[in-house]
Amino acid sequence: MSLVVVGTVAFDAIETPFGKTDKIIGGAATYIGLAASNFSNKIQLVSTVGDDFPTPYIESLNKRGIRTDGLQVHKGQKSFFWSGRYHNDMNSRDTLETELNVLADFNPVVPEEDRSADFVMLGNLQPSVQKSVIEQMTKRPKLIAMDTMNFWMDIAMDELKEVIGMVDILIINDEEARQLSGDYSLVSAARKIMALGCPYLIIKKGEHGALLFNNENEVFFAPALPLEEVFDPTGAGDTFAGGFIGFLASTHDISFENMKRAIIYGSALASFCVEKFGTERLESLTQDEIDRRVQEFVNLVQFEISLS
Amino acid sequence: MSLVVVGTVAFDAIETPFGKTDKIIGGAATYIGLAASNFSNKIQLVSTVGDDFPTPYIESLNKRGIRTDGLQVHKGQKSFFWSGRYHNDMNSRDTLETELNVLADFNPVVPEEDRSADFVMLGNLQPSVQKSVIEQMTKRPKLIAMDTMNFWMDIAMDELKEVIGMVDILIINDEEARQLSGDYSLVSAARKIMALGCPYLIIKKGEHGALLFNNENEVFFAPALPLEEVFDPTGAGDTFAGGFIGFLASTHDISFENMKRAIIYGSALASFCVEKFGTERLESLTQDEIDRRVQEFVNLVQFEISLS
Repeated sequence: MSLVVVGTVAFDAIETPFGKTDKIIGGAATYIGLAASNFSNKIQLVSTVGDDFPTPYIESLNKRGIRTDGLQVHKGQKSFFWSGRYHNDMNSRDTLETELNVLADFNPVVPEEDRSADFVMLGNLQPSVQKSVIEQMTKRPKLIAMDTMNFWMDIAMDELKEVIGMVDILIINDEEARQLSGDYSLVSAARKIMALGCPYLIIKKGEHGALLFNNENEVFFAPALPLEEVFDPTGAGDTFAGGFIGFLASTHDISFENMKRAIIYGSALASFCVEKFGTERLESLTQDEIDRRVQEFVNLVQFEISLS
Repeated sequence: MSLVVVGTVAFDAIETPFGKTDKIIGGAATYIGLAASNFSNKIQLVSTVGDDFPTPYIESLNKRGIRTDGLQVHKGQKSFFWSGRYHNDMNSRDTLETELNVLADFNPVVPEEDRSADFVMLGNLQPSVQKSVIEQMTKRPKLIAMDTMNFWMDIAMDELKEVIGMVDILIINDEEARQLSGDYSLVSAARKIMALGCPYLIIKKGEHGALLFNNENEVFFAPALPLEEVFDPTGAGDTFAGGFIGFLASTHDISFENMKRAIIYGSALASFCVEKFGTERLESLTQDEIDRRVQEFVNLVQFEISLS
């Protein structure tokens, strides 16, 4: 089933303890789209770039089944740019520079033929912009997922809460869940957040895995793979989200049991993402590599206990 | 099979954001013994107290199948005392007071009939004291497990490394693993630590679960149960260790597969421990409650994926 991905397509410049990059391709929608394209070839990318963005890269996305009719290319303008530096523990980073450029006036337009898509993934953007996408859909999608960040909690909390109430699943990290709910306990935080009206919630805990909640008190936990080395965490969260929703879209199944599988696939893809700078590792990924990585997750957590 | 537990039996005074206690019963060996007694009734407690320690409490341990021939009661002396205050996040604490008392001269003596025990759990103590216990065993136990802490890494690293090389499994937390190895990555840390000579390693990550490694590159991850509220974390690590080795001792099986089950049981017991102050919750635990808690762990992490 078709999947609409909305979010940034950007240039990033990244510094980690292992090295630094020039301007490379980044952006939430790029990572989400790349990850999802391992499962689905019916993806529409809704985003905005300047005419500094390389056409060959857009064509390479098209070859992966990612349509870009929804990608606005603004003549004479520059693409969104972010640069950041990771600390030694790789768990925190400083933003060095943010140039909004075309993103400042981003007005997403979902192409006509995709307004009845069954799956929508809203990458981190201003809540009102995310809302405008939902309102363009001509029928209620089977599943709308959204990401957000603490910045919007600081400056647009009411708007954000309204949009959360319009989606099926919110995908955020533990700090964001705590800020959004005001609760330290993730279990209490999850209950408060789902009370805003979204029946599912994923709380990402970085190297500590991810929790999936639903509003019927079910919980699932997926670990992150214990890695010897994290080379560059940029895009790992978006890759996780893209793998998650791409898997759901390809299997046409939004049951809790299938969401568990989708989280394992999302985690597997995220574990590849951090192995190289930017999108590099995702672009060279094979189905066989993904399957072997998923098998590592199975081995990592499966056990057999027979209870009386 | 019989299990020798060596460690502190003590008085604790605890402050958490939820309240504070007077002097209550604590100590690593107390928690380990209580947890293990849910699986085995062949436990020998080797420890030391003063004559201020309540005889009825010792009798209550005996009723649970914990023999105390190895518990030295020193007339006219006082028991080890620790008091601490937890911070609001419950992940860190300050020690307010430590009175070593009888612990200063602790010279553990394993009772004659237990020197051929198959299982030995060495709670956190000075490495030379842990070593003296191993040397008292007349035949090599099937499994020796040990705990330690950063304090011994600071003041007795060589001695500590020697003892680690004499045991089968070291059970420590993530910070301790990083300090012991000098590596931030837990995967690299684990490899370095096992190279000291212990073939298995458990790294506890508190609310983020625990990792089990062996020296054949196998890894298992068990989550902690996402809890609404942690009332008092004191003893959770020792309870985990006690549940782990108690389960192994009762099943006579030290395979990697069975260690996975043992970790789940240890995690389940630890999740009870934190529900009330001190040992209170552990003392009222039923087999049925444990089974239901283990089932929660199964539900939390199990998923089905069929790979081609």
